[in-house]
Amino acid sequence: MTDTPKRRSDSLTPADDSPSQPEKRARFEDVLANNATLKDDSAFISKSFCPENMHLVSVLSSDSRSNCLILHTRFEDSPDKDGIVILKKTPFPTDPKVLQQSKLVHKLLTSSDHSAESEVSLEPSNPTVTTFPCWEAKSILSNDVYHRLLVTAGLESLNEVDMTVIHPAEPHHFKRYTKSGRHVIQETPELYSSVIVPFLSKTPRDLSWVDNILTGKAERDRVLFTTDQIDDYGFTLVLDYRWNEKRIQEMHCLGIAHDPHLTCLRDLRSTHIPMLKRILVEGRRILSHKYSADAPTPGPIREDQIMAYFHYPPTFYRLHVHFIHVDAADDGGTRTGRAHLLDEVIRNLELDGSYYADRVLTIYLHDQSPMLEAVQQSYANSTSERIDSENVRSEDSAS
Amino acid sequence: MTDTPKRRSDSLTPADDSPSQPEKRARFEDVLANNATLKDDSAFISKSFCPENMHLVSVLSSDSRSNCLILHTRFEDSPDKDGIVILKKTPFPTDPKVLQQSKLVHKLLTSSDHSAESEVSLEPSNPTVTTFPCWEAKSILSNDVYHRLLVTAGLESLNEVDMTVIHPAEPHHFKRYTKSGRHVIQETPELYSSVIVPFLSKTPRDLSWVDNILTGKAERDRVLFTTDQIDDYGFTLVLDYRWNEKRIQEMHCLGIAHDPHLTCLRDLRSTHIPMLKRILVEGRRILSHKYSADAPTPGPIREDQIMAYFHYPPTFYRLHVHFIHVDAADDGGTRTGRAHLLDEVIRNLELDGSYYADRVLTIYLHDQSPMLEAVQQSYANSTSERIDSENVRSEDSAS
Repeated sequence: MTDTPKRRSDSLTPADDSPSQPEKRARFEDVLANNATLKDDSAFISKSFCPENMHLVSVLSSDSRSNCLILHTRFEDSPDKDGIVILKKTPFPTDPKVLQQSKLVHKLLTSSDHSAESEVSLEPSNPTVTTFPCWEAKSILSNDVYHRLLVTAGLESLNEVDMTVIHPAEPHHFKRYTKSGRHVIQETPELYSSVIVPFLSKTPRDLSWVDNILTGKAERDRVLFTTDQIDDYGFTLVLDYRWNEKRIQEMHCLGIAHDPHLTCLRDLRSTHIPMLKRILVEGRRILSHKYSADAPTPGPIREDQIMAYFHYPPTFYRLHVHFIHVDAADDGGTRTGRAHLLDEVIRNLELDGSYYADRVLTIYLHDQSPMLEAVQQSYANSTSERIDSENVRSEDSAS
Repeated sequence: MTDTPKRRSDSLTPADDSPSQPEKRARFEDVLANNATLKDDSAFISKSFCPENMHLVSVLSSDSRSNCLILHTRFEDSPDKDGIVILKKTPFPTDPKVLQQSKLVHKLLTSSDHSAESEVSLEPSNPTVTTFPCWEAKSILSNDVYHRLLVTAGLESLNEVDMTVIHPAEPHHFKRYTKSGRHVIQETPELYSSVIVPFLSKTPRDLSWVDNILTGKAERDRVLFTTDQIDDYGFTLVLDYRWNEKRIQEMHCLGIAHDPHLTCLRDLRSTHIPMLKRILVEGRRILSHKYSADAPTPGPIREDQIMAYFHYPPTFYRLHVHFIHVDAADDGGTRTGRAHLLDEVIRNLELDGSYYADRVLTIYLHDQSPMLEAVQQSYANSTSERIDSENVRSEDSAS
């Protein structure tokens, strides 16, 4: 019924294959969640990968913003095998009760409390709640009402670290987890037709998982809306497989166009404006209605809190619109140049029906991306052709 | 010589006043760095703000991606005063030597090492380096080569927490640190001329800090390039005050147009294309030259690693282009709809000289933003006008 494994292995990700992409993370979570068997030798695993046994070859990448560190390692017991270790600091809990249990705060007050009488009473079943661990904090600066400290002990229960070990790690693991840089490329219509389109048809991807959604063969319970299939300008609104419907700020839905000939932004013309307006207006209406204030969690979301955009280049080549919450955490997915607001796309097509056909588009391609390789090869070819023709000219003039 | 304090207090931030904006953070850092006096009563401060003395009123905001938590608190010794506590987990170090000293790994190897002979020798001056703290890690899942663990002890030296206390905290502090939501607004040219422009002229900001940069009165050592002042289409390239030139991925420079009549994207016409191309081409050339492979740190950066964009609405109303590294961490600053790539702006003006004059632009405004208030007031007025005129019509038809 579900085609998630196929989607995971087959979807095309030329635009962004950075390991920090949520999509990649979600896929790896899937591998673990779907297939994993919890082994009993927990103590053995914990011991094998402990710092005392771990040797560092290099730092593969790090992200100071999300507090993540990825290492190339070897372990004492198997010095000829490579490992990848991914460390990530866990987020703070946000439930006041959990913060109290974690010994970050002593009592829970209500906003109007100024006396001890109205404190939330401590759970009698937890008599140790008032025993606080040793607190060590260095005062860095203190100025007027502003005080900065560096806490070095006392918050251990909030400082768990999520650790993933890939061992033994193969070259393809290293490729995925090594920080790769982006290139800003100006994609002319000629580059698109002479390099990108041939590249895509040489490396076709199985998009049957999309058809399965559109025909109701898969993910029926995740489809929120679909127009009459006969209509070429129809679309289907489906929950993105990354979203579990738990937190509205993480909302992610896809509006997939039914017309199989529409692959990406480059295919859009003024004739598609009615379809695009329908996706935008209906998408916002359906989502704000489904996740309204009256509905149970995770809402509410208002229409003016919904961003709708295309990726260019897209992750897979069937025209689809992303719907997310405007207060979503920023990642590469909403970056200007990669994300094109549907509102703006419609206005651009109203201004010029061949805006996206004739247009130079600024795109980002990763070092590791096969698409970048194709683009750079075409640059090299055109340079050598130019040199050849210049040589011919200079030979002509010399003769 | 420097006008940072004035810029800090005067600059207009209608588009994004979220506390997680790097700009806001940098400003607060400035307050501390420029004016703070380190008090000797470090132990007293540390003790006053310890968890045992801290009571929680509410969680003001949290960011699971950047591992930040902001609390409304009161302290045992002053129960009638409010406090704001900002906790942030520190990023992992990335220097292999520091990782070794922090007891995350045992030995440092080179990539070709498969034997103990070629290990980087441990510093003899640090005999305790091989003593590892107690390691506790729970094996969550183990499947094939993938192993996931939750580390609960043993990495204490990597788990410092940065803690900022504002105490006593005033209402304006709460306004700044309370999570505020965004609204997606379609800014028509009429809304711009009838609401935004009057709003801006009613709340003028002192932009003398910009003039000081352009005339060489301030930040001379941070100006990278300036064109002849006589030229109306000139510009000045200056290091953004947030960037300390340490890490090239965090590069942030501003190209400020000399023409004081140019305030923002809305003012651009086809006559400005030569100036815009000059800013784009010269900006990329100068930066990639200054931070080249031959230059000392923090380079290198190639021209095709440089993103150039406008914000709309801008943070201050003098036309300026942001130059950043394409591999910069994503924050709200590069989000589509807020950031407009200079490459695309030039192409849009080439297509239609009044593209940005006649255009509906999708913008984001925060709950707390006075500009949003002005926009919503205008919506309310036009609705009541419409109702009034409808009443007149129905009275007419009834009479």
